[in-house]
Amino acid sequence: MKKPLILVTNDDGIHAPGIRNLVEAVKELGEVVVLAPDQPQSGQGHAITLEHPIKLREEHIFEDVIAYSCSGTPVDCVKLAKNVIWKDREIDLCVSGINHGSNASINIIYSGTMSAAMEASLEGIDSIGFSLLDYSYDADFEAAKYYAKEISKKALEKAFEKCKLLNVNIPKLTLEEIKGIKVCRQGDGYWVEDFQEGSDPRGRNYYWLTGKFINKEKGNESDIWALENGYISIVPSGHDLTIHPAINTMKYLEDIK
Amino acid sequence: MKKPLILVTNDDGIHAPGIRNLVEAVKELGEVVVLAPDQPQSGQGHAITLEHPIKLREEHIFEDVIAYSCSGTPVDCVKLAKNVIWKDREIDLCVSGINHGSNASINIIYSGTMSAAMEASLEGIDSIGFSLLDYSYDADFEAAKYYAKEISKKALEKAFEKCKLLNVNIPKLTLEEIKGIKVCRQGDGYWVEDFQEGSDPRGRNYYWLTGKFINKEKGNESDIWALENGYISIVPSGHDLTIHPAINTMKYLEDIK
Repeated sequence: MKKPLILVTNDDGIHAPGIRNLVEAVKELGEVVVLAPDQPQSGQGHAITLEHPIKLREEHIFEDVIAYSCSGTPVDCVKLAKNVIWKDREIDLCVSGINHGSNASINIIYSGTMSAAMEASLEGIDSIGFSLLDYSYDADFEAAKYYAKEISKKALEKAFEKCKLLNVNIPKLTLEEIKGIKVCRQGDGYWVEDFQEGSDPRGRNYYWLTGKFINKEKGNESDIWALENGYISIVPSGHDLTIHPAINTMKYLEDIK
Repeated sequence: MKKPLILVTNDDGIHAPGIRNLVEAVKELGEVVVLAPDQPQSGQGHAITLEHPIKLREEHIFEDVIAYSCSGTPVDCVKLAKNVIWKDREIDLCVSGINHGSNASINIIYSGTMSAAMEASLEGIDSIGFSLLDYSYDADFEAAKYYAKEISKKALEKAFEKCKLLNVNIPKLTLEEIKGIKVCRQGDGYWVEDFQEGSDPRGRNYYWLTGKFINKEKGNESDIWALENGYISIVPSGHDLTIHPAINTMKYLEDIK
């Protein structure tokens, strides 16, 4: 049987511990190839590089794994992988991450990790973004790695139904502490921003983004609830932003002449 | 009666003709303030600036309108406007654009214009992104400007129902040629990428993104259909990416132990 081709990418950059752990997690499941940003790209959302050319470099940092880094965004990485580097092959699965920090709830919108996975899904590839709720560089990836492997294995056994993208978040717990998996919906929340204000060496003001997540969830069917209660959350995700019930309630706008 | 406060932003940068036309369109409707990127930020998606501080500058380019530019992304602009510059005031409406080029269908995901508007909606502000299907710098904004004003007026008269974000696209037609408005859903389509490959002056390869939009729509209820048939499209939009029917079909993932 032909080995499946698995594309690995992320947004924390090719040198982040999270992607190393993801490569190790899926290595036994198929032929693994990597194309990831050459530097951290957190918060890049679905950005693409239009104004500049992208530079690509072969990397020798994962044993027995063909890997490239590029100067583009996470979404650029997937576009380059699919349309340039491996254009003559079929990519069976794209895995993105393991992200350092949560991409649950509204974070999916800001996340380069999830945007890369979404881009692959748009191009017809079953895709999974993995995130661990631990920002620290020396986070313990043991549980995340275990579940990344098991979920990816299932994805390769059985193509996704009715969706091509999973948003997987893993709580900061040990394998023993994790209660299991919840397949659930994106929780309702948003960020309240704050800016650290200061002056640069030339006396000009600057503003540095910081913020606090506000949880608006009351229910027990969301990713936020799952993670707070010791479960891994999996949200089947897409790219249709239409609020379908509002199409009718807002028909009055058609009266504008 | 107190004048409503209208925040104007975009992704083509504060010097683009589109934002000048939008300011003119909504100027009579309230007190207009501007905070837009200091350079073009097309394709920035929902990117935010985490790794660098953002610089802010007062601009004197619109008559009788307080305006700032900043070095951040379109989403950063909205965060700064809401949480720093006008933090003590209530913003009644955010309008973004007028974008040079379509943000219909999947383009909403890549668009800085729509991401800025979405960010405002996340922060509780009724928001509208306007895009004209004409990339050229000297595009004719007459029809776009007319409809931007009329739609914004309606938004100020009556708060949005069941959604806080409208994606408005205007075909490249004259006022007389436009048949009217369709409130509709996001059309199904995607980009097939191509990369212009070349060598830089030092002989290193580069890849420059280009691409072609593929329309997967067959129906007549999408924004793509509306625009192709001479209508302005308005898609009531949100930020929930969950594919709700897939929650049940993918429950089998909960069996992973």
